Amino acid sequence: MIIRMDLGPHSYDILIERGCLARAGSELDLDRRVLVVTDEGVPAEYAEAVADQCGQATVCRVPQGERSKSLQMFERLLSEMLKNGFTRSDCVCAVGGGVVGDLSGFAASCYMRGIDFYNVPTTVLAQVDSSIGGKTAVNLDGVKNTVGAFWQPKKVLIDPDTLKTLSPRHTANGLAEALKAGLIADEKLFTLFETGEAVRDPETVLTAALRVKKKVVETDEKETGLRKILNFGHTIGHGIESVTGLLHGECVALGMIPMCTESVRTRLLPVLAELGLPTEVKADPKAVYAAMLHDKKAAHGRITVVRVERAGDCLLEDIRPEDLIEAIGQVVHI
Amino acid sequence: MIIRMDLGPHSYDILIERGCLARAGSELDLDRRVLVVTDEGVPAEYAEAVADQCGQATVCRVPQGERSKSLQMFERLLSEMLKNGFTRSDCVCAVGGGVVGDLSGFAASCYMRGIDFYNVPTTVLAQVDSSIGGKTAVNLDGVKNTVGAFWQPKKVLIDPDTLKTLSPRHTANGLAEALKAGLIADEKLFTLFETGEAVRDPETVLTAALRVKKKVVETDEKETGLRKILNFGHTIGHGIESVTGLLHGECVALGMIPMCTESVRTRLLPVLAELGLPTEVKADPKAVYAAMLHDKKAAHGRITVVRVERAGDCLLEDIRPEDLIEAIGQVVHI
Repeated sequence: MIIRMDLGPHSYDILIERGCLARAGSELDLDRRVLVVTDEGVPAEYAEAVADQCGQATVCRVPQGERSKSLQMFERLLSEMLKNGFTRSDCVCAVGGGVVGDLSGFAASCYMRGIDFYNVPTTVLAQVDSSIGGKTAVNLDGVKNTVGAFWQPKKVLIDPDTLKTLSPRHTANGLAEALKAGLIADEKLFTLFETGEAVRDPETVLTAALRVKKKVVETDEKETGLRKILNFGHTIGHGIESVTGLLHGECVALGMIPMCTESVRTRLLPVLAELGLPTEVKADPKAVYAAMLHDKKAAHGRITVVRVERAGDCLLEDIRPEDLIEAIGQVVHI
Repeated sequence: MIIRMDLGPHSYDILIERGCLARAGSELDLDRRVLVVTDEGVPAEYAEAVADQCGQATVCRVPQGERSKSLQMFERLLSEMLKNGFTRSDCVCAVGGGVVGDLSGFAASCYMRGIDFYNVPTTVLAQVDSSIGGKTAVNLDGVKNTVGAFWQPKKVLIDPDTLKTLSPRHTANGLAEALKAGLIADEKLFTLFETGEAVRDPETVLTAALRVKKKVVETDEKETGLRKILNFGHTIGHGIESVTGLLHGECVALGMIPMCTESVRTRLLPVLAELGLPTEVKADPKAVYAAMLHDKKAAHGRITVVRVERAGDCLLEDIRPEDLIEAIGQVVHI
């Protein structure tokens, strides 16, 4: 199946098809210098499968985890391209999860002021969320996504077969973003979680979540308005992510809880429990709040949050810091 | 005088007016957090004049010269903004020459995926060339402008009074880019140099050169075609710049010489001599060539150069490496 992202000159296709990794060379223009970026947690054969189909591949395997989203690693990728004579006509291809996509997409956006970027996400999280939308970034001084660019990929290849090698924890981590998509914009998607269908048939969930994101991003590519709704669960979530060792989707799950009305929360909590996602976390709420204040959504004293009043529908609200502190306290305890 | 850059959603005004630095606060939206970036070679009072008109200014003074166009300095600016609580609604303002503009424009383009950028160029070179067009960048591993972004300023303030403090060498350095603009697209501008008018009335030259660049950039913002003509003199020039201590405009002057026909060269050489710009340089031609190959204009074996067949008119040509080596040899000798 192909989902077309309509973004004017930045339009591109997302191909979702079992086994498409093996055909990357016919789906993407790899007959040139290609920096294939992957991480140590991704099965090596995925990046190798892509590299084998490139004209001239340079494979960069970065350490697994959020720490690779750094300016140091960004510089390493750029130097690697320069050393190997990459020109403006060459490209970068990410093979892995969100960290690999964010880091290498940012490197592609800046090398020679921007070269082609392909994304081959191999985790649920990356497939449902971070591989589309064009947000790339690295972290700075412990604050997430401080430095980055909007840089749309030329094409995204999603091979659901790659999910077979994913641990249950990472699967749930990714499904949290699909759950978010359902809560903000697609009640039917949310009910797939309530019936347990989501775990049995992740491809359907994946496609539905991508359709939610497609619509939002097409309306507001650069996040000046509507796109902010995709941050549901992320304001508090990013704060939790900065101070705990939890995964991104786990933090988003926690961040969503206080931002739902009582009736939605009653439906959400059993779904999270069923997926094995956390519903509370041991940490210092003050530290979470401090980390959050660095978050880009904070401006001029008030903080914009996304609230879900009923499943499939949401609104933006500017709230006072004290209300946010109270909200954090609902899921974060010392 | 106002020159309007028509670039759709990225449009902006260039204000050219004596004394406008003192009125920056009414010309630019500085009533917010502003990172004022300048360098140690720029009279401190220029940056101070701007900072005094800001809501909340953070002044960063970087070391003078090309070495400040580094990822390390880029990180320093970003950290400075983060530390001072800059949000997406805040901005960066460059006060200085091309190095300051390129570095701080790039930082603005990446902070929180892009914040507002103002440019207040205070050298001839920056005023006629680098302050407009939206090219920002830093150098990497000794190769110029390897890492950067297209990021248009929100407004450019040109105060010709700032040129009074500029040395004759730096004035000539900047005029080289105006000379280039004349040669590729405006014979009348070129004749201002032949008559000596250019030195007596730099403002007229400035405006004429900006008009040439405006037209070219409006047609091709991201340098996919026509904009390449602005690289006249730059292919060889960048190579010379990488291996010598000469200034950018001086290198462009040298780079233009072999790319003109005999008749144009006959007119060009006395103009360069009159301005005190070099017409040959002692360096290793092979090193210049090697540095050039890293340049972004090199792709697939052949190198695109800009040739001027008669003053005010130019064409793009893909030439063979051996022809380029011969051309370098005309101005670079051991």
